[in-house]
Amino acid sequence: MPDNAQRSYKVIGTRPIRHDGVDKVTGRAKYGADVMLTGLLAGAVLRSPHAHARIRSIDTSAAEALPGVRAVATARDLPDQGSRMVELGEGSVNMRHLSANVLAHDKVLYKGHAVAAVAADNIHIAQEALKLIRVDYEPLPPVMTVTEAMRAGAPLLNDDVVTQPAGNAEALAESKPSNVAKHFLFEKGNLDEGFARAKHVVEREFHLATVHQGYIEPHNATALWHADGKVSVWMSTQGSFTARQQTAELLRIPVSDVKVTPMEIGGGFGGKISVYLPPVAAILSRKTGRPVKIVMDRAAVFEATGPTPGGVIRVKLGADESGKLVAADAWLAYEAGAYPGSPVGAGCMCIFACYDIPNARVEGFDVCVNKPRTNAYRAPGSTQAAFAVETVVDEICQRLKLDPLEFRLKNASSEGTRRVDGPVFSRVGLVETLQAIGNSEHYKSPPGGPNRGRGMASGFWFNVGLKSSVTATIGCDGKVALVEGSPDIGGTRTSIAMQFAETLGIPVEDVHPAVADTDSVGYTDVTGGSRVTFSTGIAAVEAARDLERQLVSRAAELWNVPADQVCYTNGVMTAPGHKATFKELVAELHETGEPLVGRGTSGKANQAGAFATHLVDVEVDPETGKVQILRYTAAQDVGTAIHPSYVEGQIQGGVGQGIGWALNEEYWYDDRGSMRNATFLDYRLPTCYDLPMIEPILVEVPDPSHPYGVRGVGEVPICPPPAAIAIAIAQAAGVRMTELPMAPHKVMAAILAKSRPGNGQPH
Amino acid sequence: MPDNAQRSYKVIGTRPIRHDGVDKVTGRAKYGADVMLTGLLAGAVLRSPHAHARIRSIDTSAAEALPGVRAVATARDLPDQGSRMVELGEGSVNMRHLSANVLAHDKVLYKGHAVAAVAADNIHIAQEALKLIRVDYEPLPPVMTVTEAMRAGAPLLNDDVVTQPAGNAEALAESKPSNVAKHFLFEKGNLDEGFARAKHVVEREFHLATVHQGYIEPHNATALWHADGKVSVWMSTQGSFTARQQTAELLRIPVSDVKVTPMEIGGGFGGKISVYLPPVAAILSRKTGRPVKIVMDRAAVFEATGPTPGGVIRVKLGADESGKLVAADAWLAYEAGAYPGSPVGAGCMCIFACYDIPNARVEGFDVCVNKPRTNAYRAPGSTQAAFAVETVVDEICQRLKLDPLEFRLKNASSEGTRRVDGPVFSRVGLVETLQAIGNSEHYKSPPGGPNRGRGMASGFWFNVGLKSSVTATIGCDGKVALVEGSPDIGGTRTSIAMQFAETLGIPVEDVHPAVADTDSVGYTDVTGGSRVTFSTGIAAVEAARDLERQLVSRAAELWNVPADQVCYTNGVMTAPGHKATFKELVAELHETGEPLVGRGTSGKANQAGAFATHLVDVEVDPETGKVQILRYTAAQDVGTAIHPSYVEGQIQGGVGQGIGWALNEEYWYDDRGSMRNATFLDYRLPTCYDLPMIEPILVEVPDPSHPYGVRGVGEVPICPPPAAIAIAIAQAAGVRMTELPMAPHKVMAAILAKSRPGNGQPH
Repeated sequence: MPDNAQRSYKVIGTRPIRHDGVDKVTGRAKYGADVMLTGLLAGAVLRSPHAHARIRSIDTSAAEALPGVRAVATARDLPDQGSRMVELGEGSVNMRHLSANVLAHDKVLYKGHAVAAVAADNIHIAQEALKLIRVDYEPLPPVMTVTEAMRAGAPLLNDDVVTQPAGNAEALAESKPSNVAKHFLFEKGNLDEGFARAKHVVEREFHLATVHQGYIEPHNATALWHADGKVSVWMSTQGSFTARQQTAELLRIPVSDVKVTPMEIGGGFGGKISVYLPPVAAILSRKTGRPVKIVMDRAAVFEATGPTPGGVIRVKLGADESGKLVAADAWLAYEAGAYPGSPVGAGCMCIFACYDIPNARVEGFDVCVNKPRTNAYRAPGSTQAAFAVETVVDEICQRLKLDPLEFRLKNASSEGTRRVDGPVFSRVGLVETLQAIGNSEHYKSPPGGPNRGRGMASGFWFNVGLKSSVTATIGCDGKVALVEGSPDIGGTRTSIAMQFAETLGIPVEDVHPAVADTDSVGYTDVTGGSRVTFSTGIAAVEAARDLERQLVSRAAELWNVPADQVCYTNGVMTAPGHKATFKELVAELHETGEPLVGRGTSGKANQAGAFATHLVDVEVDPETGKVQILRYTAAQDVGTAIHPSYVEGQIQGGVGQGIGWALNEEYWYDDRGSMRNATFLDYRLPTCYDLPMIEPILVEVPDPSHPYGVRGVGEVPICPPPAAIAIAIAQAAGVRMTELPMAPHKVMAAILAKSRPGNGQPH
Repeated sequence: MPDNAQRSYKVIGTRPIRHDGVDKVTGRAKYGADVMLTGLLAGAVLRSPHAHARIRSIDTSAAEALPGVRAVATARDLPDQGSRMVELGEGSVNMRHLSANVLAHDKVLYKGHAVAAVAADNIHIAQEALKLIRVDYEPLPPVMTVTEAMRAGAPLLNDDVVTQPAGNAEALAESKPSNVAKHFLFEKGNLDEGFARAKHVVEREFHLATVHQGYIEPHNATALWHADGKVSVWMSTQGSFTARQQTAELLRIPVSDVKVTPMEIGGGFGGKISVYLPPVAAILSRKTGRPVKIVMDRAAVFEATGPTPGGVIRVKLGADESGKLVAADAWLAYEAGAYPGSPVGAGCMCIFACYDIPNARVEGFDVCVNKPRTNAYRAPGSTQAAFAVETVVDEICQRLKLDPLEFRLKNASSEGTRRVDGPVFSRVGLVETLQAIGNSEHYKSPPGGPNRGRGMASGFWFNVGLKSSVTATIGCDGKVALVEGSPDIGGTRTSIAMQFAETLGIPVEDVHPAVADTDSVGYTDVTGGSRVTFSTGIAAVEAARDLERQLVSRAAELWNVPADQVCYTNGVMTAPGHKATFKELVAELHETGEPLVGRGTSGKANQAGAFATHLVDVEVDPETGKVQILRYTAAQDVGTAIHPSYVEGQIQGGVGQGIGWALNEEYWYDDRGSMRNATFLDYRLPTCYDLPMIEPILVEVPDPSHPYGVRGVGEVPICPPPAAIAIAIAQAAGVRMTELPMAPHKVMAAILAKSRPGNGQPH
């Protein structure tokens, strides 16, 4: 905790009980499924049985005739989007694709693709009515992998998708429809010269499975279309303002005519940013004049909401004799799913971010396949990249006979390092995480025993800043009601309230934070990009400062002294001959004048980025291939840990997800493109039986762009686990796993293949 | 419109459609009865069948044993209040009384008094359970009139009530329990000298009935007691912050631990300020761990919520030969109902407010009787006073043979006049309302025909300022979301939005106003005292100015020019070489930095007060005594009419209620103190068949304490009607009515009495 140790905080760094905690553990918090309104109808969605098919016709007449059915909606009820591109928080979005993903237009592009929807008096009637909708499909061959989809002559998903160049990539001469939606190219230095200087070069190819965020609460939305054209939506979302804008653009009504009330959220991890249900519920409400609620079932969540992509990554690294990386080349092809938009761009930006490499090239491809359109999942695109690059780094170390920690310290990015995609790092703490691992008791204790191995891997996520708003009002009893626009997924009500309390010098228990609807708080970007504690935190600090200014001026007035003689420190107001605590002052001000209301916003600051280094010990069962995690330590540069327990929780949660991704999770498709494991029984999330206690090490290198040095912590912990575990497996079992998940049958196959003569495992 | 005519407004004075209008007329607005929550229980309240009784015991065991009953509550579940007095918005409140009114402690003091409450799986079980609660009552003699209650040896309602002196009144030597809770005395000049100089002296006694506000929506509350001790309440209320504070004080929990969400309100008129149901629902929720909703039925609303008091008023006026009032004496005794708190103090302050009288005395008594505790009703206490004083003024005019308009112009209060209770008027417009009536077509057209008569009366209400808060956020599309804390009863969302829009120079349709809960907006006092458009208006203007300052500074930054060269007028930002409309600028700022959030508060400004003069023509049926209103004109000093239609609506609504009060409305009690007309069939509100089109004349004398000259308009229109109608009846039928309501049987009785020899009608 180098930079931070000088500062002494009263609230920051403590571990108060989270404000929303009791309600959540006693079942009193209100989620989207709890929404009940007078006249509420139940909505249900008909989904495609085909992974790829043309819709010849939809006959809804029988469904409409069923008693209790109030309305049926299809894509015909959605407004035409033409070829509109709209800025939606995280970039420019093709509205036709977004619309077709909400209700299929002329084609279905994945099994589970929404085709029609029904609103009825209850969910049973609605589900019965779905069976009466006749859809005439013309099945088409499904394209399930990037390799297949990029092949010349592959069946085409979208005839309006043409490969767009990005970074240094050049536009293709002929612009014909393609499954490749985007081609990224980033370059730095001279790659050929770099490899020419390299003593050791390792090149490998990695295959990744599609995995889901696995949030427990399914998507839901209740919509009420008012007679004056306004639309109210209650839903589970990571970003009420983004959901509002998407819904408005999909319905082609003014943005401010939509009000989104974010209910409590039972997990998101990036998967609750895109809008699926609100426009459908809204259309059904417009048709019926009544509120309509739709809640997905688990299969729909798996089959029809964005997972994170599978794909293929090739990495080639070259190091000189001294162990310095001199050249790096990467090729990434990520599944976009049905419509363009995989996080391959982010994968390209992250893949070499941990290393200061003079010559590098990264090429990425966003490839449409017949799967649900991918979506963000915790450091989207970076975990896949880390799996590939860190595995190759480990092999280079093996070749060089260099200690992986030493190698990483020698090559680590630090302040001033330029990433291959351009940006130069400001103050970041990768080196400090490596040192922290090196100093850890874990690192100093060998794993011991047969079939055991140890792996180390680093990871990077850039984090974002974006916009947030906070208002805060001081009540007559000196408690503060704080209003923010960031849906609280991981305890951010408390991390925001703590920064506010620190600034105003009051106890955090006296701050009551609340997440408001889009009409009751200023614009706030999504809870994502590890931005809330950083950016909404800045807004809260600004709101506290705004209040402090008012308190000083009101005290000066009350005490009849010049404002510059009034001083407010640590919750106490003083002036010559006067002194009052915050509460005393507030009580007096409440009787003598206007209420005290403060406001703060953020939008200019951006984050320096977050690094983590993980260390894992595993034991591989040589008879089954099952990998048991024995010990896991995660060192992470967390900037300033506002609430250390929640930072630790983020790290433990991210590692847990990374372990599931590494070892078990995948979408299991049959040859017709149908997911066969769309339940939590068959899609194997790790449970407490699979995980050891994950030991977090908080490395505090304050981010200079935040008043308290906050650095986003939520995403980077998911990046290193698959790589670290693969490396540990290599040490334990002598096999280099290059395909996720490293499930027992695959590990076993690798072990068996290694023992077969003539089969060259890569080391 | 003298002072105001110079100013030119773009939004103020126009008549846009109210923002909440469409939702309300299409049934989509959400009222308290619409609240539904997961696990919701239905609550019901057991009410006393006696007007006055001691509770010997309550046995709830049979009710508790009924299947489906989840909890039963009695006063034993309410915390002890000792003899606490608490400041609750509108003055110091005896908490023991407030608590005993919520659930009777040792005595019931009126029929309908809440005794116990049940929470059950549904309302039918709850109501069934009420029948199983055994209450052992010891009936006591009820005291139903102030005359009876003030008599020595009258049965005593509260043994902790001792007469408190106020104004110039002296404390009684012995402080023994009494039904008289408060004794007001205000004096000015020398009363004896004044009456000695008077040529004409008239003294009369008036009797007033108890009347109800008659709001259509019954009281309701849903409460959820969270496991961390916080309490959420959804309810119909005129003041969410007052309801919060009352609820917290009644439950003896911290004020900020209660969150009140004000639902839409179906009328209040002062009757939805006191809290009846929230603490009861909260206790039932605490006992069950589930949310509990209670909705009153109509009988409970009549029998157990505060009506406005009946009572007795004596007025004595003296005028000199020239027609100048030289002395005035008034004696008012108002029913407090079960517990102290009638508006007799306000009655004392208003009774002579229309006249500049050098020598005056007003004495008032707050008297407990076995009726529900009275509550505010539109200009509380002033209508009764106006009925008395204006009738006597008319008689003086008759004696003097002076035209009532001339007489009033000669004696009217104006800027600088000191009221008998002390305050000196600033700029007020009584004279202008008299002139407006004098210039009206109505005044110039005689009523004509037999049995017809005309009456003129003035009235006064002081209006209040108090505290309000507003926040406003600018959306990316240039629309503004405005958050206020004032429940909207009469279209104030729009009158507040209009002032905001005027200040910021944008269309009012681009402002989306919303009323927020107590955690989402700054402290705001009740919607009452005709304060919202005035005080919340000031807060909105301040919020707009706060945004304007930010827009100017952001534009300067954007355009790279000094801030003092940037000018914002009428929604257009200009600087040398630059120009942008509000929307253009906002779109650009949205992309380049922080969101725009403004805040405004009010709390220091107070209002100058409002005057009205009404003119009414009636026809009295000599065979039935029925009074038909033929024509009604109401001139009122409305300051600046922000939305003239809503000002007119307030005037028409107030006059309508005043006519009902004058002619038909009353609580009809039997000799056991039981109200026999507690339904809308038997409690006769005026309908469209009883009312002519009421013609409002808006006299605009801006109130100098508001930036746009707003003056509260909601209350004073109810003051003159009973007086004006009584005067018109006197002219039409030759009888001076001194008792309300002037129902057919009473008018008939007066007409018959007049024709009987030896019966001296007062003229």
